Amino acid sequence: MEELPGALGTSASLALRLGQAIFAVASLLFMCLDIEFYSYTAFCFLVTIMGLVIPWSLTLAVVDVFSVFVKRPAHQPGILTIVVIGDWVLSLLSLAASCSTASVTSLLLASEGFCGNKLCTRYQLSAAMAFLSWFLLLSSSLFNLWLLPSV
Amino acid sequence: MEELPGALGTSASLALRLGQAIFAVASLLFMCLDIEFYSYTAFCFLVTIMGLVIPWSLTLAVVDVFSVFVKRPAHQPGILTIVVIGDWVLSLLSLAASCSTASVTSLLLASEGFCGNKLCTRYQLSAAMAFLSWFLLLSSSLFNLWLLPSV
Repeated sequence: MEELPGALGTSASLALRLGQAIFAVASLLFMCLDIEFYSYTAFCFLVTIMGLVIPWSLTLAVVDVFSVFVKRPAHQPGILTIVVIGDWVLSLLSLAASCSTASVTSLLLASEGFCGNKLCTRYQLSAAMAFLSWFLLLSSSLFNLWLLPSV
Repeated sequence: MEELPGALGTSASLALRLGQAIFAVASLLFMCLDIEFYSYTAFCFLVTIMGLVIPWSLTLAVVDVFSVFVKRPAHQPGILTIVVIGDWVLSLLSLAASCSTASVTSLLLASEGFCGNKLCTRYQLSAAMAFLSWFLLLSSSLFNLWLLPSV
Protein backbone atom coordinates (compact mmCIF):
# COMPACT_ATOMS: atom_id res chain seq x y z
CA MET A 1 0.00 0.00 0.00
CA GLU A 2 1.40 3.35 -1.00
CA GLU A 3 1.79 6.16 1.49
CA LEU A 4 -0.98 8.74 1.15
CA PRO A 5 -0.27 12.12 2.79
CA GLY A 6 -3.03 13.03 5.21
CA ALA A 7 -4.28 9.48 5.82
CA LEU A 8 -4.23 7.95 9.28
CA GLY A 9 -0.70 7.42 10.59
CA THR A 10 1.20 10.00 8.54
CA SER A 11 2.81 13.24 9.66
CA ALA A 12 0.39 15.27 7.54
CA SER A 13 -2.46 13.61 9.41
CA LEU A 14 -0.77 14.51 12.70
CA ALA A 15 -0.64 18.16 11.59
CA LEU A 16 -4.34 18.07 10.62
CA ARG A 17 -5.32 16.54 13.98
CA LEU A 18 -3.30 19.10 15.95
CA GLY A 19 -4.87 21.87 13.88
CA GLN A 20 -8.36 20.56 14.64
CA ALA A 21 -7.66 20.35 18.36
CA ILE A 22 -6.05 23.81 18.50
CA PHE A 23 -8.89 25.51 16.62
CA ALA A 24 -11.48 23.70 18.73
CA VAL A 25 -9.73 24.79 21.95
CA ALA A 26 -9.50 28.35 20.65
CA SER A 27 -13.21 28.32 19.79
CA LEU A 28 -14.08 27.03 23.28
CA LEU A 29 -11.90 29.63 24.98
CA PHE A 30 -13.35 32.54 22.97
CA MET A 31 -16.84 31.30 23.79
CA CYS A 32 -16.57 30.25 27.42
CA LEU A 33 -14.10 32.54 29.15
CA ASP A 34 -15.97 35.04 31.28
CA ILE A 35 -19.13 34.87 29.18
CA GLU A 36 -22.55 33.57 30.12
CA PHE A 37 -22.95 31.61 26.93
CA TYR A 38 -25.58 29.19 28.20
CA SER A 39 -28.49 31.55 27.65
CA TYR A 40 -28.31 30.87 23.89
CA THR A 41 -29.05 27.42 22.48
CA ALA A 42 -26.68 27.82 19.54
CA PHE A 43 -23.73 28.68 21.79
CA CYS A 44 -24.39 25.67 24.04
CA PHE A 45 -24.46 23.50 20.90
CA LEU A 46 -21.10 24.92 19.80
CA VAL A 47 -19.55 24.27 23.19
CA THR A 48 -20.87 20.68 23.21
CA ILE A 49 -19.56 19.89 19.75
CA MET A 50 -16.15 21.47 20.36
CA GLY A 51 -16.00 19.45 23.57
CA LEU A 52 -16.45 16.33 21.44
CA VAL A 53 -13.96 17.36 18.75
CA ILE A 54 -11.08 17.96 21.18
CA PRO A 55 -10.84 14.42 22.69
CA TRP A 56 -11.48 12.81 19.28
CA SER A 57 -8.71 14.78 17.55
CA LEU A 58 -6.27 14.37 20.41
CA THR A 59 -6.83 10.59 20.53
CA LEU A 60 -6.14 10.28 16.82
CA ALA A 61 -3.15 12.61 17.16
CA VAL A 62 -1.70 10.19 19.71
CA VAL A 63 -2.25 7.34 17.24
CA ASP A 64 -0.45 9.37 14.56
CA VAL A 65 2.46 10.21 16.89
CA PHE A 66 2.85 6.54 17.71
CA SER A 67 2.70 5.62 14.04
CA VAL A 68 5.17 8.29 12.90
CA PHE A 69 7.78 8.09 15.65
CA VAL A 70 7.62 4.55 17.01
CA LYS A 71 6.39 1.98 14.58
CA ARG A 72 4.00 1.78 11.70
CA PRO A 73 1.04 -0.51 12.48
CA ALA A 74 -0.91 -2.18 9.67
CA HIS A 75 -4.08 -0.35 8.57
CA GLN A 76 -7.19 -2.26 9.54
CA PRO A 77 -10.26 -1.56 7.39
CA GLY A 78 -12.59 -1.70 10.39
CA ILE A 79 -10.72 0.96 12.34
CA LEU A 80 -10.30 3.15 9.26
CA THR A 81 -14.04 2.97 8.58
CA ILE A 82 -14.79 4.07 12.14
CA VAL A 83 -12.33 6.97 11.79
CA VAL A 84 -13.87 8.08 8.48
CA ILE A 85 -17.43 7.95 9.83
CA GLY A 86 -16.45 9.66 13.09
CA ASP A 87 -14.62 12.45 11.27
CA TRP A 88 -17.52 12.90 8.91
CA VAL A 89 -20.21 13.07 11.58
CA LEU A 90 -18.14 15.47 13.68
CA SER A 91 -17.45 17.65 10.65
CA LEU A 92 -21.19 17.91 9.89
CA LEU A 93 -21.93 18.75 13.52
CA SER A 94 -19.20 21.37 13.73
CA LEU A 95 -20.39 22.95 10.46
CA ALA A 96 -23.89 23.14 11.90
CA ALA A 97 -22.61 24.58 15.17
CA SER A 98 -20.42 27.22 13.55
CA CYS A 99 -23.17 28.36 11.18
CA SER A 100 -25.67 28.56 14.05
CA THR A 101 -23.25 30.60 16.12
CA ALA A 102 -22.44 32.91 13.24
CA SER A 103 -26.09 33.59 12.42
CA VAL A 104 -27.07 34.16 16.04
CA THR A 105 -24.12 36.53 16.45
CA SER A 106 -25.11 38.49 13.36
CA LEU A 107 -28.65 38.77 14.76
CA LEU A 108 -27.35 39.97 18.13
CA LEU A 109 -25.14 42.51 16.37
CA ALA A 110 -28.09 43.80 14.36
CA SER A 111 -30.33 44.25 17.39
CA GLU A 112 -28.52 46.88 19.46
CA GLY A 113 -27.92 46.41 23.13
CA PHE A 114 -27.88 42.62 23.32
CA CYS A 115 -24.13 42.32 23.22
CA GLY A 116 -21.40 44.92 23.37
CA ASN A 117 -19.10 45.28 20.41
CA LYS A 118 -16.28 43.45 22.17
CA LEU A 119 -18.48 40.53 23.20
CA CYS A 120 -19.85 40.05 19.70
CA THR A 121 -16.34 40.05 18.25
CA ARG A 122 -15.52 37.18 20.57
CA TYR A 123 -18.58 35.25 19.42
CA GLN A 124 -17.57 35.85 15.82
CA LEU A 125 -14.00 34.69 16.46
CA SER A 126 -15.37 31.57 18.14
CA ALA A 127 -17.55 30.80 15.11
CA ALA A 128 -14.58 31.36 12.78
CA MET A 129 -12.40 28.96 14.77
CA ALA A 130 -15.15 26.33 14.70
CA PHE A 131 -15.40 26.82 10.96
CA LEU A 132 -11.65 26.21 10.53
CA SER A 133 -11.96 23.12 12.71
CA TRP A 134 -14.78 21.91 10.43
CA PHE A 135 -12.58 22.38 7.38
CA LEU A 136 -9.70 20.36 8.84
CA LEU A 137 -12.06 17.58 10.02
CA LEU A 138 -13.50 17.38 6.53
CA SER A 139 -10.00 17.16 5.01
CA SER A 140 -9.10 14.31 7.36
CA SER A 141 -12.30 12.51 6.50
CA LEU A 142 -11.73 12.85 2.76
CA PHE A 143 -8.09 11.71 2.92
CA ASN A 144 -9.07 8.62 4.91
CA LEU A 145 -12.02 7.91 2.62
CA TRP A 146 -9.62 8.06 -0.31
CA LEU A 147 -7.39 5.49 1.38
CA LEU A 148 -10.25 3.16 2.35
CA PRO A 149 -10.69 1.21 -0.94
CA SER A 150 -6.99 0.38 -1.13
CA VAL A 151 -6.79 -1.14 2.38
CA MET B 1 -22.73 -2.49 -14.58
CA GLU B 2 -25.30 -3.54 -12.01
CA GLU B 3 -28.32 -1.41 -11.23
CA LEU B 4 -27.91 0.46 -7.93
CA PRO B 5 -31.14 1.82 -6.44
CA GLY B 6 -30.83 5.54 -5.79
CA ALA B 7 -28.08 6.19 -8.33
CA LEU B 8 -28.57 8.58 -11.23
CA GLY B 9 -31.16 7.33 -13.72
CA THR B 10 -33.19 5.00 -11.50
CA SER B 11 -36.71 5.40 -10.21
CA ALA B 12 -35.48 5.59 -6.61
CA SER B 13 -33.28 8.52 -7.65
CA LEU B 14 -36.32 10.15 -9.26
CA ALA B 15 -38.20 9.82 -5.97
CA LEU B 16 -35.28 11.34 -4.05
CA ARG B 17 -35.05 14.28 -6.48
CA LEU B 18 -38.77 14.96 -6.31
CA GLY B 19 -38.60 14.80 -2.52
CA GLN B 20 -35.74 17.33 -2.46
CA ALA B 21 -37.60 19.72 -4.74
CA ILE B 22 -40.88 19.40 -2.81
CA PHE B 23 -39.26 19.98 0.59
CA ALA B 24 -37.26 22.91 -0.79
CA VAL B 25 -40.41 24.49 -2.25
CA ALA B 26 -42.25 23.93 1.05
CA SER B 27 -39.38 25.55 2.95
CA LEU B 28 -39.42 28.54 0.59
CA LEU B 29 -43.19 28.94 0.88
CA PHE B 30 -43.18 28.78 4.67
CA MET B 31 -40.39 31.36 4.74
CA CYS B 32 -41.44 33.82 2.07
CA LEU B 33 -45.22 33.98 1.95
CA ASP B 34 -46.37 37.19 3.62
CA ILE B 35 -43.28 37.50 5.79
CA GLU B 36 -40.56 40.12 5.74
CA PHE B 37 -37.77 37.59 5.94
CA TYR B 38 -35.02 39.78 4.52
CA SER B 39 -34.31 41.55 7.79
CA TYR B 40 -32.48 38.45 9.04
CA THR B 41 -29.27 37.24 7.40
CA ALA B 42 -29.93 33.58 8.19
CA PHE B 43 -33.35 33.64 6.53
CA CYS B 44 -31.96 35.28 3.38
CA PHE B 45 -29.29 32.56 3.31
CA LEU B 46 -31.97 29.86 3.55
CA VAL B 47 -34.00 31.40 0.73
CA THR B 48 -30.90 31.65 -1.49
CA ILE B 49 -29.89 28.04 -0.93
CA MET B 50 -33.41 26.67 -1.40
CA GLY B 51 -33.57 28.72 -4.58
CA LEU B 52 -30.46 26.86 -5.76
CA VAL B 53 -31.69 23.41 -4.67
CA ILE B 54 -34.97 23.61 -6.58
CA PRO B 55 -33.58 24.03 -10.13
CA TRP B 56 -30.76 21.55 -9.43
CA SER B 57 -33.13 18.83 -8.21
CA LEU B 58 -35.69 19.45 -10.93
CA THR B 59 -33.03 19.27 -13.66
CA LEU B 60 -31.78 15.93 -12.35
CA ALA B 61 -35.39 14.73 -11.94
CA VAL B 62 -35.89 15.40 -15.64
CA VAL B 63 -32.76 13.38 -16.41
CA ASP B 64 -34.15 10.55 -14.27
CA VAL B 65 -37.55 10.67 -15.95
CA PHE B 66 -35.88 10.47 -19.33
CA SER B 67 -33.72 7.59 -18.16
CA VAL B 68 -36.57 5.61 -16.58
CA PHE B 69 -39.31 6.08 -19.16
CA VAL B 70 -37.57 6.67 -22.48
CA LYS B 71 -34.16 5.12 -22.77
CA ARG B 72 -31.29 4.34 -20.50
CA PRO B 73 -28.19 6.39 -21.43
CA ALA B 74 -24.71 5.15 -20.56
CA HIS B 75 -23.27 6.56 -17.33
CA GLN B 76 -20.40 8.93 -18.00
CA PRO B 77 -17.86 9.27 -15.15
CA GLY B 78 -17.45 13.00 -15.77
CA ILE B 79 -21.14 13.79 -15.45
CA LEU B 80 -21.51 11.51 -12.43
CA THR B 81 -18.60 13.28 -10.70
CA ILE B 82 -20.22 16.66 -11.29
CA VAL B 83 -23.52 15.35 -9.90
CA VAL B 84 -21.83 13.92 -6.78
CA ILE B 85 -19.90 17.14 -6.09
CA GLY B 86 -22.94 19.33 -6.77
CA ASP B 87 -25.15 17.26 -4.48
CA TRP B 88 -22.53 17.31 -1.80
CA VAL B 89 -21.91 21.06 -1.87
CA LEU B 90 -25.64 21.78 -1.91
CA SER B 91 -26.21 19.39 0.97
CA LEU B 92 -23.55 21.14 3.08
CA LEU B 93 -25.05 24.53 2.23
CA SER B 94 -28.59 23.43 3.04
CA LEU B 95 -27.45 21.91 6.34
CA ALA B 96 -25.79 25.22 7.21
CA ALA B 97 -28.88 27.18 6.19
CA SER B 98 -31.32 25.02 8.11
CA CYS B 99 -29.21 25.09 11.28
CA SER B 100 -28.82 28.87 11.05
CA THR B 101 -32.55 29.30 10.60
CA ALA B 102 -33.36 26.97 13.47
CA SER B 103 -31.00 28.69 15.87
CA VAL B 104 -32.16 32.19 14.94
CA THR B 105 -35.76 31.07 15.36
CA SER B 106 -35.06 29.64 18.79
CA LEU B 107 -33.41 32.92 19.76
CA LEU B 108 -36.40 34.91 18.49
CA LEU B 109 -38.76 32.63 20.41
CA ALA B 110 -36.72 33.11 23.59
CA SER B 111 -36.74 36.90 23.37
CA GLU B 112 -40.41 37.85 23.62
CA GLY B 113 -42.05 40.19 21.18
CA PHE B 114 -39.79 39.67 18.18
CA CYS B 115 -42.09 37.22 16.48
CA GLY B 116 -45.55 36.06 17.28
CA ASN B 117 -46.15 32.44 18.09
CA LYS B 118 -47.63 31.73 14.67
CA LEU B 119 -44.77 33.42 12.81
CA CYS B 120 -42.11 31.51 14.72
CA THR B 121 -43.90 28.22 14.00
CA ARG B 122 -43.62 29.01 10.31
CA TYR B 123 -39.90 29.73 10.64
CA GLN B 124 -39.48 26.43 12.47
CA LEU B 125 -41.41 24.52 9.81
CA SER B 126 -39.27 26.16 7.14
CA ALA B 127 -36.10 25.04 8.93
CA ALA B 128 -37.47 21.51 9.29
CA MET B 129 -38.28 21.30 5.58
CA ALA B 130 -34.77 22.52 4.72
CA PHE B 131 -33.39 19.86 7.04
CA LEU B 132 -35.34 17.12 5.25
CA SER B 133 -34.13 18.48 1.94
CA TRP B 134 -30.56 18.28 3.27
CA PHE B 135 -31.08 14.64 4.24
CA LEU B 136 -32.34 13.65 0.79
CA LEU B 137 -29.54 15.56 -0.97
CA LEU B 138 -27.01 13.73 1.19
CA SER B 139 -28.61 10.37 0.33
CA SER B 140 -28.43 11.14 -3.39
CA SER B 141 -24.81 12.17 -3.04
CA LEU B 142 -23.89 8.98 -1.17
CA PHE B 143 -25.69 6.68 -3.62
CA ASN B 144 -23.95 8.30 -6.58
CA LEU B 145 -20.60 8.25 -4.79
CA TRP B 146 -21.11 4.52 -4.21
CA LEU B 147 -21.71 4.03 -7.93
CA LEU B 148 -18.76 6.16 -9.03
CA PRO B 149 -15.90 3.58 -8.76
CA SER B 150 -17.81 1.01 -10.81
CA VAL B 151 -18.41 3.33 -13.78
